[in-house]
Amino acid sequence: MKNKLCHLALAFLFSWLSFFSLAQNKTVVFQSDFGLKDGAVSAMKGVATAVSPELKLYDLTHEIPAYNIWEAAYRLAQTVPYWPEGTVFVSVVDPGVGTDRKSVVLKTRSGHFIVTPDNGTLTLIAESLGIAEVRAIDEAVNRRKASGNSYTFHGRDVYAYTAARLAAGVISFEQVGPSLPKTVVTIPYQKAVLTGSTLKGNIAILDVQYGNVWTNITDTLFKTINISFGDIVQVKLYHNNKLVYTGDMPYAQSFGYVAKGKPLAYLNSLMQLSFAINEGDFAKTYHIGSGSEWSAEVKKK
Amino acid sequence: MKNKLCHLALAFLFSWLSFFSLAQNKTVVFQSDFGLKDGAVSAMKGVATAVSPELKLYDLTHEIPAYNIWEAAYRLAQTVPYWPEGTVFVSVVDPGVGTDRKSVVLKTRSGHFIVTPDNGTLTLIAESLGIAEVRAIDEAVNRRKASGNSYTFHGRDVYAYTAARLAAGVISFEQVGPSLPKTVVTIPYQKAVLTGSTLKGNIAILDVQYGNVWTNITDTLFKTINISFGDIVQVKLYHNNKLVYTGDMPYAQSFGYVAKGKPLAYLNSLMQLSFAINEGDFAKTYHIGSGSEWSAEVKKK
Amino acid sequence: MKNKLCHLALAFLFSWLSFFSLAQNKTVVFQSDFGLKDGAVSAMKGVATAVSPELKLYDLTHEIPAYNIWEAAYRLAQTVPYWPEGTVFVSVVDPGVGTDRKSVVLKTRSGHFIVTPDNGTLTLIAESLGIAEVRAIDEAVNRRKASGNSYTFHGRDVYAYTAARLAAGVISFEQVGPSLPKTVVTIPYQKAVLTGSTLKGNIAILDVQYGNVWTNITDTLFKTINISFGDIVQVKLYHNNKLVYTGDMPYAQSFGYVAKGKPLAYLNSLMQLSFAINEGDFAKTYHIGSGSEWSAEVKKK
Repeated sequence: MKNKLCHLALAFLFSWLSFFSLAQNKTVVFQSDFGLKDGAVSAMKGVATAVSPELKLYDLTHEIPAYNIWEAAYRLAQTVPYWPEGTVFVSVVDPGVGTDRKSVVLKTRSGHFIVTPDNGTLTLIAESLGIAEVRAIDEAVNRRKASGNSYTFHGRDVYAYTAARLAAGVISFEQVGPSLPKTVVTIPYQKAVLTGSTLKGNIAILDVQYGNVWTNITDTLFKTINISFGDIVQVKLYHNNKLVYTGDMPYAQSFGYVAKGKPLAYLNSLMQLSFAINEGDFAKTYHIGSGSEWSAEVKKK
Repeated sequence: MKNKLCHLALAFLFSWLSFFSLAQNKTVVFQSDFGLKDGAVSAMKGVATAVSPELKLYDLTHEIPAYNIWEAAYRLAQTVPYWPEGTVFVSVVDPGVGTDRKSVVLKTRSGHFIVTPDNGTLTLIAESLGIAEVRAIDEAVNRRKASGNSYTFHGRDVYAYTAARLAAGVISFEQVGPSLPKTVVTIPYQKAVLTGSTLKGNIAILDVQYGNVWTNITDTLFKTINISFGDIVQVKLYHNNKLVYTGDMPYAQSFGYVAKGKPLAYLNSLMQLSFAINEGDFAKTYHIGSGSEWSAEVKKK
Repeated sequence: MKNKLCHLALAFLFSWLSFFSLAQNKTVVFQSDFGLKDGAVSAMKGVATAVSPELKLYDLTHEIPAYNIWEAAYRLAQTVPYWPEGTVFVSVVDPGVGTDRKSVVLKTRSGHFIVTPDNGTLTLIAESLGIAEVRAIDEAVNRRKASGNSYTFHGRDVYAYTAARLAAGVISFEQVGPSLPKTVVTIPYQKAVLTGSTLKGNIAILDVQYGNVWTNITDTLFKTINISFGDIVQVKLYHNNKLVYTGDMPYAQSFGYVAKGKPLAYLNSLMQLSFAINEGDFAKTYHIGSGSEWSAEVKKK
């Protein structure tokens, strides 16, 4: 009898150990354009906690400018790779909510999951991490009970709910819904290229807190023009093909290598060519923005 | 001897299992008007973590406009129902701190707990989820040690501390303090009514991120005027009984059903009648605010 | 055989119990000047989660004004004491990133750990909680793999990574790196003093959300001028030694003890002398700032 109980104890222990060996790590990371002033983000986390109080819930950002799908795409590409395999992301920037855009879960080749409307949000992450599989969310099963007549908050009722169930292991990836072709909706954008001795690329994003200007020109491409720390580069920035800035600056290892108030070209934390003013705001000083209509040209002097 | 140890192992396992069967789910959700720029929110979470590192600590919002008790009440009503039974909420919007307003814990009929000054913050949640019991916080026991001569941060020393102890099961609900009559302090506000063929209601809140205008007119009341998607409604908005907006718009399922820049009436995620401009900002465009002095009239055309 | 399995079960249980008896509480608290609009904070938390999904990750604030080391120092002193012993803090306000400022971990006498560039950030916490030991981070081991050629995001690749490993018990404090002399880089600032019957001190910080003005004059020092609730004090505020405000106000227990719109002197939650307007904004009304160039004089009338 005691041995039987002992067996039960052992069975429990092994089930408990296997619980920790699941592919998913019970972590959900939320992104949206909701801001933090109302209760929308909290309602999503409440729904996730109701699915399983064991989940760890984190934020990417909720300050995506309203309806800015490009920036949502950029923030995912910027951060997903730093989270462990098995992490589930929810991204809700959804101007088409209530219309017929698809609700999907992308599994990347790196083993990350992204739950989102398929409206361009997956443009960059599909490219950088690769598409392992895309599944449509079957709302017949993967939708919060008693939410059937609410038309406007898919973030809470479908995306957070599905992400939480996937992360907690309540459903498998296969149970999300039917498999789709391995493609996602993409936003066209200027790729980085070398033309003669001039690099061209897109101003992908501003590092808003500091006013730094980030391009999509990688360190590998940048180094093809034989550049070393201290070399001077000529930088031209365009808005809708109209020149809005031209200037020379050193390529430096970091901000502190130029005097306060001076510009520099540097490789940011994603190893992409960027422009900054040491302890200043490059974007504000020269009225530089970001997005598909902004571009940069760089050559060694 | 080995069997004795085995008994110990079993005893441990059962205590561990019972640990997970508590009514409280070890989750605390914080709301305040503190903002996120200083250390106040972090100090509250530090106190809670010191009570029990096992707690899960989340935020509703800390961007309630300073001293705006109405909005604190609204955010609780908007989000508490999405969290599981047993979740403990802390709401600190407390212009009367240090005076004689009561510090209470409301247990709702749905099994949620709200720890707050009883200053109107409970107006809406008491109405929507019902009062199971109200208890005064006995500060003789439920106050952080060594905080006796700090007069101005009850959020940290009383509310966060009590909420954490309740959520962690260190104290039971009964040990919060003496039971009070089943009432809370309420803020008067205009209820939603049908007068002839005209619906009247309050502009309860703005969906600040998008500029949408949310009323307290529910879908059930709205449907009494026999409305279908695509029907046109006439909307009048008043500030202190003075007409500030009048306009016609369709009742639509969601934003995407009208052209960009066009107004619509829709049911928001709480199933209440709301007004918006597709990809625009209704409130800013027409200078609409929210609160007890704002009202709306709606009729079918 | 069954007894052997039982042994395994016991061994597992004891390892599980010892897991909970570590000095560190598996909690990491992050502070920075990154803001919440991009992915920087999320990348740090992703790196920490990859070290151990068991960690609890919280925020102090990410709204430190860009490059403001003084305010980073202040926020640590304001909040660290409320977190339990063993909590690991990461503070990244780092204008010198990429230059030769030291990366350190301070262990305070209270048993808290702070991971930060040693650039003045530790000025106040070293003074208030005391230095138990300072260690330089050995980046040969305590740096994220595959991050070797990224020069600009030490917050993610060194600080968050080291903090997570320390908090999770992957490394001991000794394994952070070599022990340094028990000193940290400090920012000079005006100490609070009594001169004749006049108290002098620094305006250490603004309580930004409410516009309250906080000095470094403690309750103990303040009480040496024999003050009681209701007594009137004369307050003079200086910017670079130029008088910018002079006024009389009562010393009150809390905001609610004076009429709406009236000024008061009070002891804040850190028990330091502060000035406020009840339901108003003292700093904005009188254009008062904070930092080393701001000072206050107070005397009893």
